[in-house]
Amino acid sequence: MIENKVEKKIMWGDLDPLGIVFYPRYYEWIDGCSHLFFERISFDLIGFWKDRQIGFSLIETFANYFSPGWYKQDIVILTRLGKLQRKAVTIHHNIMDKASGKVMVRGYEKRVCMDARDPNNFKAMEIPDDLCRLFRQAM
Amino acid sequence: MIENKVEKKIMWGDLDPLGIVFYPRYYEWIDGCSHLFFERISFDLIGFWKDRQIGFSLIETFANYFSPGWYKQDIVILTRLGKLQRKAVTIHHNIMDKASGKVMVRGYEKRVCMDARDPNNFKAMEIPDDLCRLFRQAM
Amino acid sequence: MIENKVEKKIMWGDLDPLGIVFYPRYYEWIDGCSHLFFERISFDLIGFWKDRQIGFSLIETFANYFSPGWYKQDIVILTRLGKLQRKAVTIHHNIMDKASGKVMVRGYEKRVCMDARDPNNFKAMEIPDDLCRLFRQAM
Amino acid sequence: MIENKVEKKIMWGDLDPLGIVFYPRYYEWIDGCSHLFFERISFDLIGFWKDRQIGFSLIETFANYFSPGWYKQDIVILTRLGKLQRKAVTIHHNIMDKASGKVMVRGYEKRVCMDARDPNNFKAMEIPDDLCRLFRQAM
Repeated sequence: MIENKVEKKIMWGDLDPLGIVFYPRYYEWIDGCSHLFFERISFDLIGFWKDRQIGFSLIETFANYFSPGWYKQDIVILTRLGKLQRKAVTIHHNIMDKASGKVMVRGYEKRVCMDARDPNNFKAMEIPDDLCRLFRQAM
Repeated sequence: MIENKVEKKIMWGDLDPLGIVFYPRYYEWIDGCSHLFFERISFDLIGFWKDRQIGFSLIETFANYFSPGWYKQDIVILTRLGKLQRKAVTIHHNIMDKASGKVMVRGYEKRVCMDARDPNNFKAMEIPDDLCRLFRQAM
Repeated sequence: MIENKVEKKIMWGDLDPLGIVFYPRYYEWIDGCSHLFFERISFDLIGFWKDRQIGFSLIETFANYFSPGWYKQDIVILTRLGKLQRKAVTIHHNIMDKASGKVMVRGYEKRVCMDARDPNNFKAMEIPDDLCRLFRQAM
Repeated sequence: MIENKVEKKIMWGDLDPLGIVFYPRYYEWIDGCSHLFFERISFDLIGFWKDRQIGFSLIETFANYFSPGWYKQDIVILTRLGKLQRKAVTIHHNIMDKASGKVMVRGYEKRVCMDARDPNNFKAMEIPDDLCRLFRQAM
């Protein structure tokens, strides 16, 4: 199984008035880490969109919060594939405190494969075989 | 049932390179709308924290995306209470296109009631009666 | 002189751990208000880019902070043209407390007119007459 | 002269519909880099606030944009002190393309030293000697 690892330091601007991370920031990091994961497995998300009009649209995102993030805390984000379906794929993210390894946030993005050849009528499609193979090799 | 309504115009800076809303922005709006909902039902989220050390910590957030948001689109966000549990409450949000009324995003925040008197050991607690009453009146 | 007015409420997620607005949020609002100003004076920023490959690239932004913004504060943002140069235009923004009218932040964006017909070699150009006229009518 | 260096990769969520960095993101990074610079020179910004009620409030920010930032571009942010005045200090930031070393953005934050002992009446004060020394050693 391929797991991508990103390290990050929590910054002042990520915090709310309680001094803890404002949760939409986690989704920004999760989204960034999905893109880095795709790159890691040589899955050219933007290229498929431009060259083949195949998109992977977000249909669901979720996060569970176990402990808050603090100013200057070093965190680690581990990203891996979850469920692979005929038309959709789920990417899982664990955000952990670097020092202790304790999980702070667990989240996922579910993306559905879209045929975007008709810009006025995107529709869900089965993930093409060659792309499916890239996912399978990463599981 | 009390439902709070917020209107908003999607701005340039909310968009990604595909020209559609970058989804963490939806969570920013959802969180803002939860705060406005609490205010609407006279639930003093920040006051309870400061005066009684009772917090309502996020433990779960979720969103489902049905259609993308575009530049300068006028949207409406409707917020209402979902499930009220002994120790937790869920706030639901429907984000809709203003012109057509079509739902674009459906999301929720689940918040658990925390006893924060010991800053080193927050723990989940039953929602106090007076606060529970405020929630019930809004359902 | 045309002045565009936008009203806004400061939200929880706009604040930093001191409970005041994290300043990059002001720039997000300023940028949004520049777009709304362009719309107000019938200046089709995105259309000129798509149809005539004329862009108005940011070359300078600036802000002066007089007093901090707070949770749930109602603010007003007034936007108007500043200096119009042969190849550039400056848009000024005053962010004020709605209740008192006191200026909290004063900022500007300076944008230079770009010939983008060669995507590999954008260059500054004189603002075309028809666009210049739209600016002049707004001054 | 002490110069702090931070490396960063530009992410999908940092971009606007033209596929280039939405400029308020630069200010988020600049602010984060100021904090890291203070840490690097052992200047305890938050500690001085909490223990001595001395703040360094932003009064001015500025940025000049030379070339746009792109998806997945690796950038370097160099941070150093600029002018040290009796009551204020300026922190300069150069954001550069990592591969070529070309400057993309040049910005600064100007912060004024505040006596915050009376929470209802912050006022500018001379930078105390011990703090001034920390700045001087970094110049």
